[in-house]
Amino acid sequence: MDDLAGMHWDSLQFDSGGATPIYRQLSDRLAGWIREGALADGSRLPPTRELAGRLGLNRTTVAAAYEALEQEGLLQAHVGRGSFVSAPARPAARLDWEARWKPSLAAPQTLAPAEAGALNFASWRPAAEPWAIERLRRAATEVLAARGPAILDLGPAEGYPPLRELLWAQMKREGIAQPGDELLITSGCQQGLDLAAKVLVGPGETVLLEDPVYPGARDLFRAAGAEVRGVEVGPGGVSMADLEQELARSRPRLMVLTPSFQNPTGASLSLDARREVLRLASRFQVPVVENDVYAGLRYKGNRTASLKELDTQGLVIHLRSFSKAAFPGLRVGWLVAPRAVARRLAAAKQLTDLHTDQLSQAVLARLAEDGTLAKRRERLRSAGAVRLEAALEAARRELPEGAGVWTPEGGAHLWVRLGEPSDASELALRARAHKLLFVPGRYFAVRRPQTSALRFTFAGAEPDEIRRGFEILGRLARARPSRAAAGTRHGIPALV
Amino acid sequence: MDDLAGMHWDSLQFDSGGATPIYRQLSDRLAGWIREGALADGSRLPPTRELAGRLGLNRTTVAAAYEALEQEGLLQAHVGRGSFVSAPARPAARLDWEARWKPSLAAPQTLAPAEAGALNFASWRPAAEPWAIERLRRAATEVLAARGPAILDLGPAEGYPPLRELLWAQMKREGIAQPGDELLITSGCQQGLDLAAKVLVGPGETVLLEDPVYPGARDLFRAAGAEVRGVEVGPGGVSMADLEQELARSRPRLMVLTPSFQNPTGASLSLDARREVLRLASRFQVPVVENDVYAGLRYKGNRTASLKELDTQGLVIHLRSFSKAAFPGLRVGWLVAPRAVARRLAAAKQLTDLHTDQLSQAVLARLAEDGTLAKRRERLRSAGAVRLEAALEAARRELPEGAGVWTPEGGAHLWVRLGEPSDASELALRARAHKLLFVPGRYFAVRRPQTSALRFTFAGAEPDEIRRGFEILGRLARARPSRAAAGTRHGIPALV
Repeated sequence: MDDLAGMHWDSLQFDSGGATPIYRQLSDRLAGWIREGALADGSRLPPTRELAGRLGLNRTTVAAAYEALEQEGLLQAHVGRGSFVSAPARPAARLDWEARWKPSLAAPQTLAPAEAGALNFASWRPAAEPWAIERLRRAATEVLAARGPAILDLGPAEGYPPLRELLWAQMKREGIAQPGDELLITSGCQQGLDLAAKVLVGPGETVLLEDPVYPGARDLFRAAGAEVRGVEVGPGGVSMADLEQELARSRPRLMVLTPSFQNPTGASLSLDARREVLRLASRFQVPVVENDVYAGLRYKGNRTASLKELDTQGLVIHLRSFSKAAFPGLRVGWLVAPRAVARRLAAAKQLTDLHTDQLSQAVLARLAEDGTLAKRRERLRSAGAVRLEAALEAARRELPEGAGVWTPEGGAHLWVRLGEPSDASELALRARAHKLLFVPGRYFAVRRPQTSALRFTFAGAEPDEIRRGFEILGRLARARPSRAAAGTRHGIPALV
Repeated sequence: MDDLAGMHWDSLQFDSGGATPIYRQLSDRLAGWIREGALADGSRLPPTRELAGRLGLNRTTVAAAYEALEQEGLLQAHVGRGSFVSAPARPAARLDWEARWKPSLAAPQTLAPAEAGALNFASWRPAAEPWAIERLRRAATEVLAARGPAILDLGPAEGYPPLRELLWAQMKREGIAQPGDELLITSGCQQGLDLAAKVLVGPGETVLLEDPVYPGARDLFRAAGAEVRGVEVGPGGVSMADLEQELARSRPRLMVLTPSFQNPTGASLSLDARREVLRLASRFQVPVVENDVYAGLRYKGNRTASLKELDTQGLVIHLRSFSKAAFPGLRVGWLVAPRAVARRLAAAKQLTDLHTDQLSQAVLARLAEDGTLAKRRERLRSAGAVRLEAALEAARRELPEGAGVWTPEGGAHLWVRLGEPSDASELALRARAHKLLFVPGRYFAVRRPQTSALRFTFAGAEPDEIRRGFEILGRLARARPSRAAAGTRHGIPALV
């Protein structure tokens, strides 16, 4: 019985000079046919002798191929009857995964991508200019030539030593690294938050965040099972009265603050407020994670000392990142903390991803040395200053009466308040129809959805685009008297 | 009163052509002096007019510098009295971090580095050969030229699209990716485990692992608060009887298995045993994380189908990595799982580190396309085959009576059993004095420390070194009749 007369046996060609033995070439092809269904489940393969003859192969070669297929579970041999295809079945009774997610996990949010040609004020990433890419190419070539074996081998959890030393010196110069501190390189600032959650926050414990806040922080701590509480943010950053009240009431394990150019509001804490944060942290003995990711993006005014610089009691874990001023596709950030904390975080990091990618660490070290990062930051600052001015000016001119913005001195975001009652989500939907993208305020809420506010990210757009954006925004905000917010949740254009 | 007559004011030089304004250059220098203690806490700075005269600057410039220092908290102005240094104090009352670690966190283990010149059988990483580094350099240059802006921008959580497509095609060819599955790129295989813990395991819930097991898996799930239980591993992999009993008894949320060349034992499950694992997983409705990180490192015998290939009920999350056969310093791995699972894992990944480093993803995609990875795997396989033979042969010859090894067909590790009663930790200590490094068995224990066994990692050494290693090991094992294990825990040479 020649079961498989219809098969294209003659299409089987073998390469006798290659590294893969002939029997393996044969079994691989047959396995492919079985998986594709070309050889049906239960069908009988030709006897080894017969197939060997047809293919001009040794019989033992075909027998070895059949044995390999048996081993892979694709063939079953029955003595005296032959070899039968045992195709992987795909039956209906599948595991019910839906019942298995940890209860703390929110359903993943869908991020609607920005359409081409839209005016995108929903997100910003520093675009890599050709000169910067060229420098990065050169840096990659140089570091691989000089230290290829070390870069491509496993490295220390704490970070690639040359980059770590360089950042440590920088942190000392900035007054951030103190005696007794240690520096840990992370896979971006987001990982700094993840490690803090892993080391310091147990399920059911409370974490204080700003409200509104960067959703990636809120969702991370919620997913870790924490109880997340929000502290109200005003134009001068978190409210001290609210912070004190929340500290007294909920005795949190941790507070996470972005003292400069907070996402989404752009608000910054004054020096006095920073001192007060530390007094409160000390009084309630609550550690502070200082997310200083926008640190380098001040466009005007004087630099205010970071919480870490002002901290004299080892209360602060200071998070930084290359992503806002270098290249966000390279996932490298760092943190500075009292040594005991940094070491625990490093141990947690080792269990998370062993260490941060070393090629990117080495490239960034090189770009820090050769001045590329400084030059890039300078250019981002010049561009940012012009864009911020354009945005503030356009907001003043275009927004309807009762609406307004807070006025940051740096960063990427403007917080636009439309005046009550307005529904920024509904407005975002109409704006999208006009190819204008921004993120409605409620997306950033911890507990108090600011339905009449929105985040307008100015840092990635040209002044002309910003002016057009505000013109459309103002027109749409005036066009339909806004209704009280009761709308459904709309598509979320971006995460960062 | 000229308070600071001793200061080297004349050392202050200013660059009037630079991007940094003069007042900022002055305040930066003064901030440095304050932080270094050169300007002591409480000392009075010269009046602005006086310092301006001394430095040849405009008085407003000096005033602006003082204001900047005030803003940074380094100076306090008292009307009518002058400006006083307010150096950051470092008092004693520091936060008690030790009371704050999550109880599930073990103290970090110290990894003793291998001495230079030692015979290192404690760990293995594929060394990057010059030809491979050269290809990698070329790949980096090419991908940055072709797709620099996309690579350096933020990317999707699921992975860099070209690499993801390429791996998906490979996984389909291997029979691992099924209709309804999805592929997620991870920051190494370790992250696959971390994400599974985040999505599927709550605190106090049980996870089944092999015993002995890769410590990075055990410690990760413990740190996540899980109850970790071990299933006994024999020469043929986990014991089916023990697995069934543990499944019935502890109803775990998850089991994690390495069916091929398990770390540390080198043991592999037979095809029948794999089918039985899936039957049990289905019967108890327990998902399986299949850690197939050694998949490409078979040196002899036929490939056995992976659990994922045999799975017809969507029970398996299949983990892979580039690190064992490419470059471990590039932290890139991937997983294949039923779509709903893969998407949850992707959402968890986004909260963990946004996405995997894109430069390394792009470089690895290029090296997969141009055949470099295949060539490298081929060379690792040839070297591994010779090394495995040398190790098995030397073990037979050198080990004392009553001792022996299990005989893997691939991977990196041999499991050496010294015979009872022996203390492999004590032996490791004596061996270290002879510059011979291996990892004692108890390091890998979940619940049953195998005090008389050790892991001998053969894959990174030349046959000559392997023979010398076993010669020393045999001699030391014979030299002192081993005592029952009661020793303390010795330094741990390596994690992977």
